[in-house]
Amino acid sequence: MKKRTYIEDLGKHIGEEVVVKGWVSVRRDQGKMVFFDFRDMTGTVQGVVLPQSAAIETAKETRLEYVVSITGKVNERPEKNKNSKIQNGDIELEVLEMTVLAKAEPLPFDMSIEGFNLDLTTELDHRALTLRHPRLQAIFKVQAVIIDEFREYMKSQKFFEFQAPAIAPATAEGGAEVFEIKYFDKKAFLTQSPQLYKQIVMTAFERVFSVNKVFRAEPSATTRHLTEIVSLDAEMAFIDSWHDVRDMSEATVRYILLQLEKTCAKELEFLQATLPVMIEKTPTLSLTEAQDKIFEKTGRDVRGEKDLNPEDERSLCEIIKDETGSDFVYVYGYPTRQKPFYVYPNPDAPEFNEGMDLLCRGVEWLSGGRRINNYEQLLEHVATWGMDPHKIEMFLEAFRYGVPPEGGFAFGAERMTMQILGLKNIREATMFPRDMHRIDGLLTHGEDGTPSA
Amino acid sequence: MKKRTYIEDLGKHIGEEVVVKGWVSVRRDQGKMVFFDFRDMTGTVQGVVLPQSAAIETAKETRLEYVVSITGKVNERPEKNKNSKIQNGDIELEVLEMTVLAKAEPLPFDMSIEGFNLDLTTELDHRALTLRHPRLQAIFKVQAVIIDEFREYMKSQKFFEFQAPAIAPATAEGGAEVFEIKYFDKKAFLTQSPQLYKQIVMTAFERVFSVNKVFRAEPSATTRHLTEIVSLDAEMAFIDSWHDVRDMSEATVRYILLQLEKTCAKELEFLQATLPVMIEKTPTLSLTEAQDKIFEKTGRDVRGEKDLNPEDERSLCEIIKDETGSDFVYVYGYPTRQKPFYVYPNPDAPEFNEGMDLLCRGVEWLSGGRRINNYEQLLEHVATWGMDPHKIEMFLEAFRYGVPPEGGFAFGAERMTMQILGLKNIREATMFPRDMHRIDGLLTHGEDGTPSA
Repeated sequence: MKKRTYIEDLGKHIGEEVVVKGWVSVRRDQGKMVFFDFRDMTGTVQGVVLPQSAAIETAKETRLEYVVSITGKVNERPEKNKNSKIQNGDIELEVLEMTVLAKAEPLPFDMSIEGFNLDLTTELDHRALTLRHPRLQAIFKVQAVIIDEFREYMKSQKFFEFQAPAIAPATAEGGAEVFEIKYFDKKAFLTQSPQLYKQIVMTAFERVFSVNKVFRAEPSATTRHLTEIVSLDAEMAFIDSWHDVRDMSEATVRYILLQLEKTCAKELEFLQATLPVMIEKTPTLSLTEAQDKIFEKTGRDVRGEKDLNPEDERSLCEIIKDETGSDFVYVYGYPTRQKPFYVYPNPDAPEFNEGMDLLCRGVEWLSGGRRINNYEQLLEHVATWGMDPHKIEMFLEAFRYGVPPEGGFAFGAERMTMQILGLKNIREATMFPRDMHRIDGLLTHGEDGTPSA
Repeated sequence: MKKRTYIEDLGKHIGEEVVVKGWVSVRRDQGKMVFFDFRDMTGTVQGVVLPQSAAIETAKETRLEYVVSITGKVNERPEKNKNSKIQNGDIELEVLEMTVLAKAEPLPFDMSIEGFNLDLTTELDHRALTLRHPRLQAIFKVQAVIIDEFREYMKSQKFFEFQAPAIAPATAEGGAEVFEIKYFDKKAFLTQSPQLYKQIVMTAFERVFSVNKVFRAEPSATTRHLTEIVSLDAEMAFIDSWHDVRDMSEATVRYILLQLEKTCAKELEFLQATLPVMIEKTPTLSLTEAQDKIFEKTGRDVRGEKDLNPEDERSLCEIIKDETGSDFVYVYGYPTRQKPFYVYPNPDAPEFNEGMDLLCRGVEWLSGGRRINNYEQLLEHVATWGMDPHKIEMFLEAFRYGVPPEGGFAFGAERMTMQILGLKNIREATMFPRDMHRIDGLLTHGEDGTPSA
């Protein structure tokens, strides 16, 4: 049996006979001849079945999404038919033999590049099929690159990868937004963040990262909320100040953007997405400075507020873009008591902390900052925050035995995908989105109270 | 401020003054002088504080696991004191200045390489601290390499990485061993396997892999069971037969072993682990052939049994090792009705399937095989297996539209780590093991019925 040639490699085989396997993406029956677009995981090529071809009868019976194995000859197209804008635009596959490996039912909607136009609910109801569309393939290719290049950069900086758990005991930070699991005859919970675990592992491995699921039982069905997301987390010891964390997070995002530019140019163009601009040194403002700037430029007085609201975030990003050309801006120095107990207070002004957010194009992309590494200070915060130290005993043990100054950051893979690609809804950036109404299908109650999907 | 030098790089700086930051692993106060072992994420070095050093007072107050910043001179050791068996055995750090960055409480047990000897319960109760021990660091380094090299090999073979969900709707395969989640006013479940999801994504991307958590509510507290594990999964389309899946899984394991040999030699030696031998072509037997062989060599007649029991697995591995030198053996062709509905039956003898297991050193490492790709055949199996097709509607939709012959495999990261390193208990191969009695700490009921840990 002749070895399969991937469609992306056909251009190297002009004049040769090859075996191609793939799906029928497009089919135009012109009576005597049949034209196809064939698709495999490496791309698309136009095929033609001539009237005298042994494949002509099979070609007549073939339908969209049929899986076929083809023996064909790679022909250069006449100059006038060449199209440099598409993959394999200079060649055509002349089909000599064609075998149907699997049939498909008629498609429930138009899956062509031009005709694909579903509302999101329908798209999600048919996720198994719509995943075959080039638009969705491009989105999830970009997401896979974001996740993979995060790991690559972390490894290049000596970060150690660990697996953060999904099942947690009673969490100290918990609240209404945590999912409860029936755990044998007891209760357990799904982790909302690997924060405390990554800090524990950092105390042993210095620099650590993880790619893990986190879960939020937010009873909101907005375009930005899911119950299950992929969190990209990093934590590093032996920092001199929170600036080291800022710099590492900036370098990480810069590296991911660079890799996307290199490896996803085709996908970005297809999705009409423009990568955000990261200048050499991303502007970095304290919350107070940011609020002053918003007041100065817009007249809206948000000075003294405890955080930036969504309108502030949009204003600030616009101002910074105007002033510097940067799509990114760091904001640091939030009110200490507004943030979790482990965030490091500024020693010179302890009412503000050394936490930070990275904003881009009007929304937060990444959060992080310096954490408290001193055991006594941590215990004080635990008491002030009214937490039960027994519920974070493992975390506290880690800090009882000598922990260097440290910090870290985290961002969500889906939100970053959504923002980079300019998608309107985070469900578009999630292969199998889960929200309060949907797990695969829409949730309804069956007769036995069991949800069916 | 002088740049930090990592301990692994000290050998390049003989005669120079350097800054080292790390933990105190060993401390021997010899009255006038103090000797240390300092540890950072790259290794260990011996340090000495001479009587006239400015650091001598600090050195006297320093204790185990203190975090220190040191300015020191890298000296070559006299020939008679050189030790080629340890890292930096040819050098010593003469401490000129020492600053304590963080203190540690006295250790609750001996953490030295020689003295560390805890029962597993104590080790787990103090996981946050024991993670600092070289033994645990070596174990989890090996595990990180297994996971990372799985991904690297998959990527090199054009597999696409996707994120399989953890939250599932009512599962078709479910049963007693699935965890239930309180999902707003409904129920949901934790995925026991990404099987159906990876098959769905394969129908769109051809070759896919995932590294994801899976969850099993097995009410057993054996040395081999956990409730949360890391599953390494692959699925590939356009196979000619199940042998392609076998070959891909063999190549994957071979690659991981090779990379471990290359990058974890130090860790394997420290843990006294020997990598299993994979010969050029791993012996591959049908279940029937395996049973015949066991009968022939041991006299134990297990012919006609529906599966290999643990004793059979051990016998078979010993026989194959004797006959061929291989630590690995594939077994395929299990009774069709004993296995899940999606496993492909052998067309020539449909009572046996084209599923396979890879055994090594007496236990199963990996499972996989060919799956049913034909929609009608799948529907027949769904009916025969008595399943509710509505509960796997998304999966069935994927197969309604043309799916090539396909198959895949999966293995657990913790079990592979355990088996490669010859660990006695899978909890040793899991950073934060979860079982029916433990999530971080042992589970007990608080007054409000909430578990505390």
